[in-house]
Amino acid sequence: MRRGSSSLVGASRRLSSEAAFLRRRSANHAPLTPLTFLARAADVYPDRVAIVYDDWAASPAAEWTPATERTWAETSERVGRLASGLRHRFGVERGDTVAVLSPNTPAFLEAHFGVMAAGAVINPINTRLDAPALAYILRHSAAKVLLADSAHATTVEEALSELELAERPRLVSLVDTVAGPHAGGGGGGWGEECEYEELLAGGCPEEPWRYPEDEWETQALNYTSGTTGRPKGVLFSHRGAALNSINNALIWSLPQHPSYLWTLPLFHCSGWCFPHTVTLQAGTHVCLRSVDPAAVFAAILSQRVSHLCGAPVVANMLLHAPGAAHFGAALTSAAAGGGQRVKMLCAGAPPPAAVLEAMEGLGVEVTHVYGLTESYGPAVACSWQDAWAGLPPRERAELMARQGHRYPLLEGLDVAVEAEAGGEAAGGEAAGGEAAGGGGLGPRWRAARRDGLELGEVVMRGNAVMKGYLPHISPYLPHISPTL
Amino acid sequence: MRRGSSSLVGASRRLSSEAAFLRRRSANHAPLTPLTFLARAADVYPDRVAIVYDDWAASPAAEWTPATERTWAETSERVGRLASGLRHRFGVERGDTVAVLSPNTPAFLEAHFGVMAAGAVINPINTRLDAPALAYILRHSAAKVLLADSAHATTVEEALSELELAERPRLVSLVDTVAGPHAGGGGGGWGEECEYEELLAGGCPEEPWRYPEDEWETQALNYTSGTTGRPKGVLFSHRGAALNSINNALIWSLPQHPSYLWTLPLFHCSGWCFPHTVTLQAGTHVCLRSVDPAAVFAAILSQRVSHLCGAPVVANMLLHAPGAAHFGAALTSAAAGGGQRVKMLCAGAPPPAAVLEAMEGLGVEVTHVYGLTESYGPAVACSWQDAWAGLPPRERAELMARQGHRYPLLEGLDVAVEAEAGGEAAGGEAAGGEAAGGGGLGPRWRAARRDGLELGEVVMRGNAVMKGYLPHISPYLPHISPTL
Repeated sequence: MRRGSSSLVGASRRLSSEAAFLRRRSANHAPLTPLTFLARAADVYPDRVAIVYDDWAASPAAEWTPATERTWAETSERVGRLASGLRHRFGVERGDTVAVLSPNTPAFLEAHFGVMAAGAVINPINTRLDAPALAYILRHSAAKVLLADSAHATTVEEALSELELAERPRLVSLVDTVAGPHAGGGGGGWGEECEYEELLAGGCPEEPWRYPEDEWETQALNYTSGTTGRPKGVLFSHRGAALNSINNALIWSLPQHPSYLWTLPLFHCSGWCFPHTVTLQAGTHVCLRSVDPAAVFAAILSQRVSHLCGAPVVANMLLHAPGAAHFGAALTSAAAGGGQRVKMLCAGAPPPAAVLEAMEGLGVEVTHVYGLTESYGPAVACSWQDAWAGLPPRERAELMARQGHRYPLLEGLDVAVEAEAGGEAAGGEAAGGEAAGGGGLGPRWRAARRDGLELGEVVMRGNAVMKGYLPHISPYLPHISPTL
Repeated sequence: MRRGSSSLVGASRRLSSEAAFLRRRSANHAPLTPLTFLARAADVYPDRVAIVYDDWAASPAAEWTPATERTWAETSERVGRLASGLRHRFGVERGDTVAVLSPNTPAFLEAHFGVMAAGAVINPINTRLDAPALAYILRHSAAKVLLADSAHATTVEEALSELELAERPRLVSLVDTVAGPHAGGGGGGWGEECEYEELLAGGCPEEPWRYPEDEWETQALNYTSGTTGRPKGVLFSHRGAALNSINNALIWSLPQHPSYLWTLPLFHCSGWCFPHTVTLQAGTHVCLRSVDPAAVFAAILSQRVSHLCGAPVVANMLLHAPGAAHFGAALTSAAAGGGQRVKMLCAGAPPPAAVLEAMEGLGVEVTHVYGLTESYGPAVACSWQDAWAGLPPRERAELMARQGHRYPLLEGLDVAVEAEAGGEAAGGEAAGGEAAGGGGLGPRWRAARRDGLELGEVVMRGNAVMKGYLPHISPYLPHISPTL
């Protein structure tokens, strides 16, 4: 010991370096929120195309101007108008819920940001639900406003009639300018208080957005499918939504300015955070009202789509569609010329190896991901391993159909099995950090052997895990307890 | 008003949704830290090459095995040994400072993570400083341990002799296995307490890493050059380092598995956070002891380097090196075949348009970024605008030499000029958010006109701004005050 009192010097320095003036302040700490992604896209790329929308199948030629084409500056302005309209016309306050029932239209995309900019919580609702399920969710979420596409007028009217007057949200109708008023709906007269464009027209685009005061504030409320009972309301924080958006970009090597096709429903788990991911990279959102193969093919080729997401059923539908062979040939020839390459994230169910292999033949590079509403969408990916490159297509596809590895900011992932009494103690990757958040599986559990044979329960930990369920239906709450 | 008490329903739901059990806990909140990037790389890609090192100029052939080639599993093990060695051999505690004085060797890269894993603060020191400056920094940082490459033995000995006994750090020598003991140093006998490999051999790789308990904890201490007085110690937080690492990846469209050449000194501002960025994307760190053009050319071609960083002087050195024409031809032909493409981030000084244009001819795509130690390295980039594509090379290069746009997670950027009394009020991008952190420039300032003519002071705000300066030399402290 030749240093004498040196450790005291260090100790006193440690304390002083954490002095009050080194604390978080507005200059060096901003709450993480996807809202900043839009602010930046509008600031850095005001004239880039943010959103395009058309009836793609009806207008398949390349190089035409879609019916709706908005820049980031325009999108940002409309988002500001929506936020302002929600606040002043409907009295939306911080933390209020605004529900949306719509196919993948520009209005729905705008709502993902406009509701946030009003300081409120977006509640995207599955368009396939019946009126009683819709009524249940509107009551449970205490939605203050409902934005609903006019195609769903009948269901909405029925659902609202099931609610007490005090439970009913204020109704705004979304009339799709491309598809027009659909069967079952119409241009007014189904109980709506105003039309979406009218709401925007009354909003003030200069009104400052409401950013979260704390990044832990709730950003979205997504109901799970209810396969294990009543739908459960999953709460996302601004922090988690921002970080899992970044995760999506990193895991997919998503470059700046992707052209992203909305085959994945925007109502499904906040579109897996892709409204934010694509905006973060200042890409173009290519809206799609329904997953019709002809429209998908036409949109991919004409809008030079580079990325899309969906369940294996979407891949399967494309593979067996009439135009598949022609599409595959066009895409493969484009890719060979160093041009367009299409990547798809596939999740929702494990994709059969045959589907992965066939998609490769179609010219679409598929990555299999896994997740759930409780993890902000996908949070686990089948990460490509170099050793697979030399394998025959089928064998490779079988490995690519496996799951998987955690996203960069999902800090812990294990398959847990009950530890035998007196047997192997808790282990697993999650136990690797002394102070990584009280890590480890605890004494009752151990990590499954990574042999593809031992089964167990998936355990996730980290920034890609939900805040929790909206109260009153929380039978699964112990599962996010640190005492698991 | 047909809703009656509906706003009360909303209000009570808002409160209940923020109930105690929806607070942050270890299951759904992990402090952001670059340490998790390494844990994941080792977990998901254990067998991928993490670090390669050789005397590239002496071994220019492709397809040979570099003298040092370590996988992520090996790197993670060595990092664990280093952390354990620092703790048990030298009593390094949370918040202690560990200084490093070294060229870009594998040991220096490992130290970026090993010091973190010990819960300590890394203090990378400029190798070009003289003994008095080195002594000043070691005293000011209260470094408990100094890891120093033996090439710097003379300077280190002189610096240590200037310190009181109680101020002296414990000394560990780094003996470069590729370059061998350098002039001025030697294999022992210059006051070191042990050699780096000996420290690692005594460390336990199974010992859990110390993760930060709070992401605001200090992660690194980087001294600025001291052009405006004594060097100032800039404190990075784990949160800021993690987020600016992500920023680097996003802004550069950095894909998974880049091959990254260390032309930028690791001591310079924590290598602009690239030790973490490359690890986040599970790339390969190609170490380089000194920026010798022949070695750079050989490394780029043989290691299929895809990315590098550096000051314009590095670009200039490459352009005027003897092998430049041959290198440019080899690279351009590789790129034309759909193979290797090389991208460079250039900062530290504004690159002349002529340099940018010439680098394009060499086959290297340069992006101009801007930042400072106070912003964790680059935090502003000259983002490519589509309209530039059709311009002649010189004109395009002139636009590409301009600055620039904020990184995604630098939440505010303005050029501020003093507002005339009674004139235009505060404005600018930073004022765009009501609660974006008390945004805006305040009453005294307004944003400069974006005409490329009006001059002012650069003002940054957000997660890419340092915690502050280490106390006792903080004349610039008011500049991170919210009352600017």
